[in-house]
Amino acid sequence: MTLNHKRIEEAYNLINKKIIKTPLVSNDYINNLLNSEIYFKLENLQSTGSFKLRGATHKILKSLNDISENGVVAYSSGNHAQAVAFSASQNNLSAKIIMPKTAPQIKIENTKKYGAEVILYDTYFQSREEIGNEIQKKDNRALIKPYDDEDIIAGQGTAAIEIVNDLKEQSIEPDLYLCCCGGGGLIAGTSTYLKHIYPNIRSYSVEPNEFDDTKRSLEAGKIIENKKNAKSFCDALLAPQPGNITFQINSNNLEGGLSVSDEEVTKTIILLAEQLKIVVEPGGAVAAAAVLNNKIDIKNKKIIVMISGGNIDLSLFNKL
Amino acid sequence: MTLNHKRIEEAYNLINKKIIKTPLVSNDYINNLLNSEIYFKLENLQSTGSFKLRGATHKILKSLNDISENGVVAYSSGNHAQAVAFSASQNNLSAKIIMPKTAPQIKIENTKKYGAEVILYDTYFQSREEIGNEIQKKDNRALIKPYDDEDIIAGQGTAAIEIVNDLKEQSIEPDLYLCCCGGGGLIAGTSTYLKHIYPNIRSYSVEPNEFDDTKRSLEAGKIIENKKNAKSFCDALLAPQPGNITFQINSNNLEGGLSVSDEEVTKTIILLAEQLKIVVEPGGAVAAAAVLNNKIDIKNKKIIVMISGGNIDLSLFNKL
Repeated sequence: MTLNHKRIEEAYNLINKKIIKTPLVSNDYINNLLNSEIYFKLENLQSTGSFKLRGATHKILKSLNDISENGVVAYSSGNHAQAVAFSASQNNLSAKIIMPKTAPQIKIENTKKYGAEVILYDTYFQSREEIGNEIQKKDNRALIKPYDDEDIIAGQGTAAIEIVNDLKEQSIEPDLYLCCCGGGGLIAGTSTYLKHIYPNIRSYSVEPNEFDDTKRSLEAGKIIENKKNAKSFCDALLAPQPGNITFQINSNNLEGGLSVSDEEVTKTIILLAEQLKIVVEPGGAVAAAAVLNNKIDIKNKKIIVMISGGNIDLSLFNKL
Repeated sequence: MTLNHKRIEEAYNLINKKIIKTPLVSNDYINNLLNSEIYFKLENLQSTGSFKLRGATHKILKSLNDISENGVVAYSSGNHAQAVAFSASQNNLSAKIIMPKTAPQIKIENTKKYGAEVILYDTYFQSREEIGNEIQKKDNRALIKPYDDEDIIAGQGTAAIEIVNDLKEQSIEPDLYLCCCGGGGLIAGTSTYLKHIYPNIRSYSVEPNEFDDTKRSLEAGKIIENKKNAKSFCDALLAPQPGNITFQINSNNLEGGLSVSDEEVTKTIILLAEQLKIVVEPGGAVAAAAVLNNKIDIKNKKIIVMISGGNIDLSLFNKL
């Protein structure tokens, strides 16, 4: 069965006692500033600090019978790492996680804290996929992919079920949906569910300027990689190219892609702290940065904006 | 009619479209650390950044027919100021707000941003009550008191209705309730409603060490003032003594009082940013500081912890 709203609902039935139902909030100051109604989904308040717990928990719970006693392995820039480590420990499974040496300290420390063995690799000279596949075979561990897996995508999509429930309670019909995009799992899952409920909603991916592979791939109608020397401090959104499965779904669901600069993200993180009183990591703030910097016409519209994570080193947060 | 759960429910019917239904969240890391189940009520995510909007909105909406075209006046260390200014502007009323010269910049600026005229006074040499009463008479403005008013207390109490709804949805029966206490309005209102629903719940006020007037007043059975030279960076909790109405209610509802040091509050603000991804002001973090610093036995218990506000200057937040 290909990914559809039913699989997302099944995923939610499986995981909803294991995750936090995160809030959807609106802020009068920001609404007045932008002359629109913005509804922020606060996945930074999710357990482990990001939406990634939804997909990881779904994959692990669904595969429990197939996972050997040797446990799981995953590669991740940090949020999927924490999610897999946490969910593995909840299910008494051993976890080995491959993370970049340059990942934020908070992400590496939390992954260890949840009991996983962390293997650091050099993003320039080593391939995380190769290390992961090697460990998978040698250790006989189940590989929990970060995004290009329908169970992961269905898990991430469950955030949209909560969004819809909260909007319906307030009788709100949204016009637009903006969501960050790295490998594309979160936006693939959530846009699928939102499109099912709101057939006319227009959904857009948001990426860092130099990591706008999904935007350019959507325009070209085929998968395009980012440049090798691309740079951004949005550490969660540096996937080299869209996933095969996620791109196929996103091609169907999305109107197009937007992108923002690191400077625009920095200002957004500060505004979200001052106005919403929340701590957001760079990758988690790009969709909010897009609406705050007029990347798309939102006047008099109702917009869902995904805030995907909050795992930022406080030293960096302070520097901003 | 004296304050009871019905008045709090009536208040909620009047204000619930004007405020944010704030989330109640739990965090696995903190729960494991403390061997208990903590439910944090995030009133820092409330519009204007604190619970004060509940009471101010209730008072203003309920008194609309009695407020002259000259508008309202209020005195406040900052959170009530923003709440009155915001609610007044929503109702097209002029607002004059008396605030300490030493109030956090963010509170003064936001109060002005919401359209109020701000009058700064010197806390050592001037009395805010005298200035307020003078303006009330001279300008014929309605005085919106910060806490010692049953309509204000009923408004603040509405936070407990949301707490109860969220706990019931998860079939959780709480053992303890910890809430910050300045003048005592928030804890008076919320503890009244919680006691009605959970007759066996044990509620405690939490104050800064040198501003433990409610704690000592509860012990003495009469209102006791703080020392004139008392100091704390919890700017929202520096009321000189319990209110007459709030103390009467709190004497009935509370088991006793707890207190915490500024250093304990500082560590708590950092932990709440790292773990819950939220920005909390010093006064808003004291109840969390009490559970994190073993001020009361919470082992294997279910505890509601109020996070009351998030209006902290980001420069101070960074310094911490």
